Amino acid sequence: MSGARLVGVLGGMGPAATVDFYGKLVEETPATCDQGHVPVVIWGDPRVPDRSLSLVGDGEDPTPYLRRGIEGLKRAGCQVLAVPCNTAHAFVPRLADEAGLELASIIEVTADALAADGVRAAGVLATSGTLRAGLYAEALRRRGVAAIEPGEPDQRRVMAAIGAVKSGAAGPAHRRALEEVSRALADRGAERVVAACTEIVLALDGSRVPVPVVDPARLLARRVAELALG
Amino acid sequence: MSGARLVGVLGGMGPAATVDFYGKLVEETPATCDQGHVPVVIWGDPRVPDRSLSLVGDGEDPTPYLRRGIEGLKRAGCQVLAVPCNTAHAFVPRLADEAGLELASIIEVTADALAADGVRAAGVLATSGTLRAGLYAEALRRRGVAAIEPGEPDQRRVMAAIGAVKSGAAGPAHRRALEEVSRALADRGAERVVAACTEIVLALDGSRVPVPVVDPARLLARRVAELALG
Repeated sequence: MSGARLVGVLGGMGPAATVDFYGKLVEETPATCDQGHVPVVIWGDPRVPDRSLSLVGDGEDPTPYLRRGIEGLKRAGCQVLAVPCNTAHAFVPRLADEAGLELASIIEVTADALAADGVRAAGVLATSGTLRAGLYAEALRRRGVAAIEPGEPDQRRVMAAIGAVKSGAAGPAHRRALEEVSRALADRGAERVVAACTEIVLALDGSRVPVPVVDPARLLARRVAELALG
Repeated sequence: MSGARLVGVLGGMGPAATVDFYGKLVEETPATCDQGHVPVVIWGDPRVPDRSLSLVGDGEDPTPYLRRGIEGLKRAGCQVLAVPCNTAHAFVPRLADEAGLELASIIEVTADALAADGVRAAGVLATSGTLRAGLYAEALRRRGVAAIEPGEPDQRRVMAAIGAVKSGAAGPAHRRALEEVSRALADRGAERVVAACTEIVLALDGSRVPVPVVDPARLLARRVAELALG
């Protein structure tokens, strides 16, 4: 495994989602001993200002924090960059280019998987910032997949559930809200529901949604293992 | 939280145990939003040669790999060092000193907790390297706590279970073996069983052991949150 490429993970946004992603990376790596796993450096700085608030015009620009993390990962010798925060992808591709790191984009990996499955319409559960920035809408449109987004009252319920996961207080009511919003997306023609915020998958039980729930964090983990181990 | 100290985690030994530790750090941090969590950099290099094999005289010295990781964490700006691998503590204190990092030692934190609970004798489930290096025996002795270690056949069962967790193949037989070895330690007078290898806690169901099972990874997580957030 000395030929493995060092992967930089810009995480901490939020921390529980980064733990979840790291666990999936270990699961998705076909290793039989420690030494067969992907070498990673995780920059877990949870102090990055809220990405979604910034994108809806209400908060501090997270760019300097994200740039500092990416530069730290570059200095550590990382060659591949993964960011288990969908919303951060409104900022990250440009910063990865600046640093000369190969970005495994959670958005592109997910859009690729939906297109490969022949999906024509996908529901998107995401932060308001991700929706406002059009991250999934644009990536899906380029592949001929329609993005179906929750209406305003449902989007408020999604944001409440994400906030609850971040505060460690997600309960049955939040889970139910995510299920109901997912069902509404399926009723409007979504063939898949994309859990397009890494917190959502921590609170949404896919078995209670009538269409398959797609987990971008797992797709990213699989892609990162491939990129690192070849 | 801008006053929080940056914590360096030297992990990847093994990766699943580091995921477990990071999850416990998030759980043990009393935060209500991303920004209240502990900022960490995790150096997760699973290519470090087997620590236990080296200590029993059978393998490559991991010191250069551990030093490289600690230096990387130091360069990243970390002030506190945590290593969620008990066996690595045969090497780490000297390297932390060299780098000028404050080590939150998983061994010392655990020995402190046992002494504070008034424990007089504790069973130690650990790698053969940890036992050979006397890491717990020595830390417990200094606090007047007796260390009770498995006999040779039981120790082989412990090592098989640890290897199974590292290869992602831990099954019911491994769980049962750890329970039976734990029970034998309790029969010999252990008032606690210390899951003194970060893989063991992933395969041992404490509810099936007649005395409390102590999880050093959780104790370390709690200590790190205190050190970082003050």
